[in-house]
Amino acid sequence: MSKSTDELFKNVIAHCKEYGFVFQSSEIYDGLSAVYDYGQNGSELKNNIKTYWWKAMVQMNDNIVGIDSAIFMHPTIWKASGHVDGFSDPMIDNKDSNKRYRADQLLEDRIAKMDEEGKTSEAEELQTEMDNALKAEDLPRLKELIIQQNIKCPISGTANWTDVRQFNLMFSTQVGAIADESDTIYLRPETAQGIFVNYLNVQKSGRMKIPFGIAQIGKAFRNEVIARQFIIRMREFEQMEMQFFVRPGTQREWFEKWKEARLKWHLALGTDAAKYRYHEHTKLAHYADAAYDIEFDFPFGFKEVEGIHSRTDFDLSQHEKFSRKKMQYFDPEVDPETGKPYGNYIPYVIETSIGLDRMFLLTMINAYEEEDLSTEDKQDSRTVLRLHPCLAPVKAAIFPLTKKDGLPEKAREIMDKLKIDFNIQYEEKDAIGKRYRRQDAIGTPFCITVDHQTLEDNTVTIRHRDTMAQERVAADQLDKIIGDLVSWKNVL
Amino acid sequence: MSKSTDELFKNVIAHCKEYGFVFQSSEIYDGLSAVYDYGQNGSELKNNIKTYWWKAMVQMNDNIVGIDSAIFMHPTIWKASGHVDGFSDPMIDNKDSNKRYRADQLLEDRIAKMDEEGKTSEAEELQTEMDNALKAEDLPRLKELIIQQNIKCPISGTANWTDVRQFNLMFSTQVGAIADESDTIYLRPETAQGIFVNYLNVQKSGRMKIPFGIAQIGKAFRNEVIARQFIIRMREFEQMEMQFFVRPGTQREWFEKWKEARLKWHLALGTDAAKYRYHEHTKLAHYADAAYDIEFDFPFGFKEVEGIHSRTDFDLSQHEKFSRKKMQYFDPEVDPETGKPYGNYIPYVIETSIGLDRMFLLTMINAYEEEDLSTEDKQDSRTVLRLHPCLAPVKAAIFPLTKKDGLPEKAREIMDKLKIDFNIQYEEKDAIGKRYRRQDAIGTPFCITVDHQTLEDNTVTIRHRDTMAQERVAADQLDKIIGDLVSWKNVL
Repeated sequence: MSKSTDELFKNVIAHCKEYGFVFQSSEIYDGLSAVYDYGQNGSELKNNIKTYWWKAMVQMNDNIVGIDSAIFMHPTIWKASGHVDGFSDPMIDNKDSNKRYRADQLLEDRIAKMDEEGKTSEAEELQTEMDNALKAEDLPRLKELIIQQNIKCPISGTANWTDVRQFNLMFSTQVGAIADESDTIYLRPETAQGIFVNYLNVQKSGRMKIPFGIAQIGKAFRNEVIARQFIIRMREFEQMEMQFFVRPGTQREWFEKWKEARLKWHLALGTDAAKYRYHEHTKLAHYADAAYDIEFDFPFGFKEVEGIHSRTDFDLSQHEKFSRKKMQYFDPEVDPETGKPYGNYIPYVIETSIGLDRMFLLTMINAYEEEDLSTEDKQDSRTVLRLHPCLAPVKAAIFPLTKKDGLPEKAREIMDKLKIDFNIQYEEKDAIGKRYRRQDAIGTPFCITVDHQTLEDNTVTIRHRDTMAQERVAADQLDKIIGDLVSWKNVL
Repeated sequence: MSKSTDELFKNVIAHCKEYGFVFQSSEIYDGLSAVYDYGQNGSELKNNIKTYWWKAMVQMNDNIVGIDSAIFMHPTIWKASGHVDGFSDPMIDNKDSNKRYRADQLLEDRIAKMDEEGKTSEAEELQTEMDNALKAEDLPRLKELIIQQNIKCPISGTANWTDVRQFNLMFSTQVGAIADESDTIYLRPETAQGIFVNYLNVQKSGRMKIPFGIAQIGKAFRNEVIARQFIIRMREFEQMEMQFFVRPGTQREWFEKWKEARLKWHLALGTDAAKYRYHEHTKLAHYADAAYDIEFDFPFGFKEVEGIHSRTDFDLSQHEKFSRKKMQYFDPEVDPETGKPYGNYIPYVIETSIGLDRMFLLTMINAYEEEDLSTEDKQDSRTVLRLHPCLAPVKAAIFPLTKKDGLPEKAREIMDKLKIDFNIQYEEKDAIGKRYRRQDAIGTPFCITVDHQTLEDNTVTIRHRDTMAQERVAADQLDKIIGDLVSWKNVL
């Protein structure tokens, strides 16, 4: 990360706190690591991102519906999905410092150092050795590599290591007070399984025909060993996932369609296309036959925001096996090759999975600008969030020019007409210029000023965030002016 | 519960499953006790209830803002709030059946039996004894009462009881992989504390002046011993809470205002006022100086849907004590009595707290009707959900009369114009009458039929859910007709 991008990132984080977008969780108790709270502007922005996704996925597609499944699920679900056995990181403890590390991370750091020092072939060799050990889940071999490389704990400075052990990333808790019902359950590490186990309930009660999709927005939890980069990797986070159920053999075609459709969703917000790229997975997860990430150019480099995965029939087949319930769909469509209905099968699944918090950070970083407004005569600047108007937390701010002469009453009268449809803010303190700056900083597209002329002819001054241009309009037109700019029609 | 109301409740539950409103969580794994998932229509209805609340609280009041704080919080918060020590039920195990019971529940059942048998004075005496023991947290005394009354386990039939122990209702989990950072945290049992610990961050970054409120919608978790009555008492549930910060001494006035305002919110949906009542708490929680419930007449009796609590400065004072951070607000307003600013103080808090799942169930029960449509000639009936149009999951369904002659294409063309603004469903299967019934069952206010005349003059038939009346309207008018009926202006 170069100095300027590092600074940009730091400034965005500070801005998030100063203007009520994101606070460290439990801040007055010195915080809870890797957990964050959304403030008054952050919660509105987050809600708007959710609405944009939900409308684009559920409302615009008549073969996609939404659900809202619980965080708590039957523990066997996570056996079936592979999370109980496979969702873990290899950890190693230093016996002197009592600090725990990810074994693969220690080796990755060493490889990076070799690369820096120009020892390219050594680096490549170690990478291969490590990859093989990880693939074979050969934990003793990982320890051997750490010992061979003489990697030391940065705290104690010693190489006095324990064995490498697998550490599961799922949070667990005990449910039920009745002694013999008491059981360990997990906080879901992904929302997808809530869709899989409900897919036949939704299909039948909603009379869905393949291809169809089920969408969901919800919290997921991972006990990340190394949580970092602000809201990029959190222990509690939110996902927006859609599982699209298709006839086996058609998955590649649908995978391509969703790959395109999802990037289009991002670009419709007006973000520079050069900041996005696809990243193809070469090492595929056990359930996938194809996978692409949509990556965004964050200040700390390109990073995944969304994944599009062709998950095959892995999850549904596993649930059929573990639940002993049929997970098959009956397809009445006639196969042109055989002349008979396709009949019973377990559908294949294309997944689109976007991290809501990452999308939030992307949106903030992309919108944040420290704009130089200096003229020959004087230095000036402003911080402006160039948020898409559909996503802006506050759609318009309304200012009485002064606190007297009935201007506050008139301003409130205008606000009352607008506030059912739009999130409106009222401000009467400080000079107008200062009030503009505060609204710029939270990305409000319009500032509306009520002055003495308003009392005469019912016109107001409307000031545009991006251009700072002002115009005089009839107060009766505000509904339409704001409505047009923040309409979802502009992005859907 | 009388037979007919019992049947009504059962029918609503069955309806919830059959039409994609609520599914038992992890149903294919035989369910997870006291946890439910919301299906395709349930998630939309739930979202609409959330929107109604958020608009009414946050958007309509310029001194109330929203936040979205995390489920994970610093564990000391729950010490400060009293939940670690006090949020528990007295439990007793039967040694023969190995079943666990709430000790107070066993006694309550006995008291109810005495009442039934007309032993009123004995019942009253036992009630007093139990209340005293609970108040004094005298667990041995609770056991004594159970033994004295010779209460037996319904499973084993014996009175072979363990001692009574406190069982905390909070779910706990371990966070952090780093050995020495590892710590027990809790899943929040209420969303309110997320507001309290953030109140100064919001107040400062949002320049809020007292009185002001902070609203939040989010999940909470309680390890209920006896979870029951469908989605009335769940282990994972959702709250919509607003904390209103006021100057000490003014709490009674604000309490009354919010008490009125919240009932008005319920009644604006058109629900019969006779189905609601206030219930005043006589035994107050340790933090409260006044508390009222808003109760609804469920099939199983009046039950709390929402609570309005005057929480004093208890929570904020506790957080000041436990976090060692100042929780005071500086009030610049001049006190007319002293002529000086009110200055620094810890605000008093009025809370409005509504259970989203209970509100959902209330809405379903209130809307559900099995309507007799029989005439002299033939028997007929329909099940109709008379949901307020603002809350209906699907705003309009669009039907081509037949699957040919270009009618499906025309219907989709009309749908495409409406679907950005409204959740629209397209259906082309079965006779129109059958399609009407399916939409009635999910509460869709409008069914729009596209027929051959539509191709000629661009008019459609619109059929109203409640009256079943049909009228011919121009397709270009649909946007306005639907928009007017589902507008939030009708309830805000």
